[in-house]
Amino acid sequence: MIEAKILKGFRDFLPQDEIARKSLSEKAESVFRSFGYVPIDTPALEYTEILLGKGGGETEKQIYRFNDNGGRDVSLRFDLTVPFARYIAQHREELVFPFKRYHIAKVWRGENTQKGRYREFTQCDFDCIGADNAASDFEILFMIKTALEKQTTSGVTIHVNHRLIFNKFLKNICGANAKADTAEEILRIVDKLAKIGAEEVQNQLSALLDNEGAEKILDFISPKSTWDETFAAMVQAAGGEDENTKRLQTIHKFMIDAGVENSYVLDPSITRGLDYYTGIVFETFLNELPSIGSICSGGRYDNLMGLYSKTPLSGVGGSIGLDRLIAGLEALNISTSQKTYAKLCIANLNEDQCGLYQKLAAVIRDAGIPCEVLSEAKKQTAQFIEAEKKGAAYVLLPCESDPVEGPFVLRNLATRENVKVCGIAGLKSL
Amino acid sequence: MIEAKILKGFRDFLPQDEIARKSLSEKAESVFRSFGYVPIDTPALEYTEILLGKGGGETEKQIYRFNDNGGRDVSLRFDLTVPFARYIAQHREELVFPFKRYHIAKVWRGENTQKGRYREFTQCDFDCIGADNAASDFEILFMIKTALEKQTTSGVTIHVNHRLIFNKFLKNICGANAKADTAEEILRIVDKLAKIGAEEVQNQLSALLDNEGAEKILDFISPKSTWDETFAAMVQAAGGEDENTKRLQTIHKFMIDAGVENSYVLDPSITRGLDYYTGIVFETFLNELPSIGSICSGGRYDNLMGLYSKTPLSGVGGSIGLDRLIAGLEALNISTSQKTYAKLCIANLNEDQCGLYQKLAAVIRDAGIPCEVLSEAKKQTAQFIEAEKKGAAYVLLPCESDPVEGPFVLRNLATRENVKVCGIAGLKSL
Repeated sequence: MIEAKILKGFRDFLPQDEIARKSLSEKAESVFRSFGYVPIDTPALEYTEILLGKGGGETEKQIYRFNDNGGRDVSLRFDLTVPFARYIAQHREELVFPFKRYHIAKVWRGENTQKGRYREFTQCDFDCIGADNAASDFEILFMIKTALEKQTTSGVTIHVNHRLIFNKFLKNICGANAKADTAEEILRIVDKLAKIGAEEVQNQLSALLDNEGAEKILDFISPKSTWDETFAAMVQAAGGEDENTKRLQTIHKFMIDAGVENSYVLDPSITRGLDYYTGIVFETFLNELPSIGSICSGGRYDNLMGLYSKTPLSGVGGSIGLDRLIAGLEALNISTSQKTYAKLCIANLNEDQCGLYQKLAAVIRDAGIPCEVLSEAKKQTAQFIEAEKKGAAYVLLPCESDPVEGPFVLRNLATRENVKVCGIAGLKSL
Repeated sequence: MIEAKILKGFRDFLPQDEIARKSLSEKAESVFRSFGYVPIDTPALEYTEILLGKGGGETEKQIYRFNDNGGRDVSLRFDLTVPFARYIAQHREELVFPFKRYHIAKVWRGENTQKGRYREFTQCDFDCIGADNAASDFEILFMIKTALEKQTTSGVTIHVNHRLIFNKFLKNICGANAKADTAEEILRIVDKLAKIGAEEVQNQLSALLDNEGAEKILDFISPKSTWDETFAAMVQAAGGEDENTKRLQTIHKFMIDAGVENSYVLDPSITRGLDYYTGIVFETFLNELPSIGSICSGGRYDNLMGLYSKTPLSGVGGSIGLDRLIAGLEALNISTSQKTYAKLCIANLNEDQCGLYQKLAAVIRDAGIPCEVLSEAKKQTAQFIEAEKKGAAYVLLPCESDPVEGPFVLRNLATRENVKVCGIAGLKSL
């Protein structure tokens, strides 16, 4: 006998959990599709050289890498971004630009599972490639709002910043000759603001710069009371208007035009890590549970395919953190607890009639009501118990003399009431 | 620069191909759900010991196996059946039986790609576990018909057999003392009937048995003109009625009761490989293209979890071959060639109005019409070309003075006609 177990950091999903996960990704997917974003897919396994690129760092330590039976150095993808860059470089001639795609798929990282992280998880990415303008920046921000508000009644707030404005400000602070390391270190410290608090950020910055510099940064990254005030302060600190501040202003105008400006905050503390982003950056928080962290992050980048192609293409996109989102919805008690898609179960009262039960079920399904025929002939009470355990709301008791035409008795499992129903029409209100 | 390429036997999916694949699996999924089958998920990576079980043979040669960073002997799953057996053994107490589940997910096999096979492909499995009766056998057969007829106007025919009747017949032919090897070899030869033809099957059988035995087998596996005639011949050759012939008869009665008997053929040549199945077995063919081979196969098995649990559970299930099905639909020209889910594109005539365009798009999307805002301001003709390349049917030309309320001009890209539309209500018929 072999012990049935799975690897640490990997998960089985029971039906209820899988239905909840599918519900999230299907809602997101329906929004992506309604915006004209199309699905693609790429292999789980790629040449390691492709995935690691210039390699190095955390990624190399965490990647699942091995030699396949043909001796090739291969790895499981650790995100959907690198394969997407490779995909665009490889299929550029076959795609229509601006290219808007989404990709919901598994990725693998041999992370330390003690942090509550998983070694296999689903990423949900969406990007618009080949249009470098405020319209596509805003579209992504608007799509995030639409997709996430389909998931939750809590509402979301999207914190937006522009990395190049931040960079210009940093240059002013550090001086044009400062080491790139210092700027990166500052970004890293600022990125931790929500986690470690303003005081600790100031301490760490003071250790790096002088007190005055630290204070200036802290002042810069503190949002004022409105978008316009924050924006004015940012423009001033960054040394005046330029194309980047204009871009940000246009995006804000679009928010107002579309009547959704209340869902967005200009937040100069959002930096999104290191050297990847070259335009807007954003993070998204549940209004009723911001402490769980960003549930959708991303930004604009200019050189996605740099490793695979000489012709740069600018893109903007984001990624919904499904695991965090589902944890948030569960904490807020607004996650689905559906156990089955079947609304009603047909009781199996006489096993000889199972062909007729399926005939009846087909008519009910055609009327748009998912309907399971219970597979074992049992007493009525046992059928109720099974249907309830399965998560159905109703049990239909067919009549022996004509299981297909009825009349039927409909048992409401919640109220324990039985109602006589004369035909399929009587079920339509379910 | 790194050359953008993928591993042999692996595939990128362009949007059009991914939409076609999603369309198939979503239709199948909606049918599974409507029958009360629930989704589960399991890890892509498992302990090799779990996946290989007693090990050996083709599987061991084809599996993607390696040591992870923690030194564990792990492998990518090569099917969804073995992980499902492990899952049932591990979560038995958390599931409601009879347990009906589906699982659509990727699997990996280092197969010889020259046969036109892929090393990464999607399996689409569905099973009912824990009910050993004609009702669940029939439910699976009925669900296959329902799921596949959603995919194709061609119609399907499901060839059904019962392995234990076949086995009993074989025992009569070979004698009770024949080696198990001989029976397995006969099964293997019979399984190739559709591929190599009756004559070659007879030759191979004659080499194994005497001529008389070969003829008897060939006679046994040839369907007669009706289910009843075939059934009568099978019963006689297998030495009379028993519980297995009765089961098959009940399943046929259910087919007739449900009014679907014309979709099924009793076909004694269906054996489905070697020692796994212990009840009905089936294969499914497109009526207009049977030569492409079975697009959905499976059967009943009694000891799925044998390796992981002492308590046996009987199950019945099948697997849709999505790659073969899609190849079949393409060959029949009934595959979808949809390139986008967006029905219409809003022309971007003035980039300052992109916020208003998105506001308009949101109203159109809320009315149930997927709608993309084109991301770059260009001339009208260029917008038409882009929308057509993307696969949309219509372009909406907003009016400059009020992009949200209209009136609009609607361009039909197929007929090249422009129609004036006064409000969203005028779009509802799209």
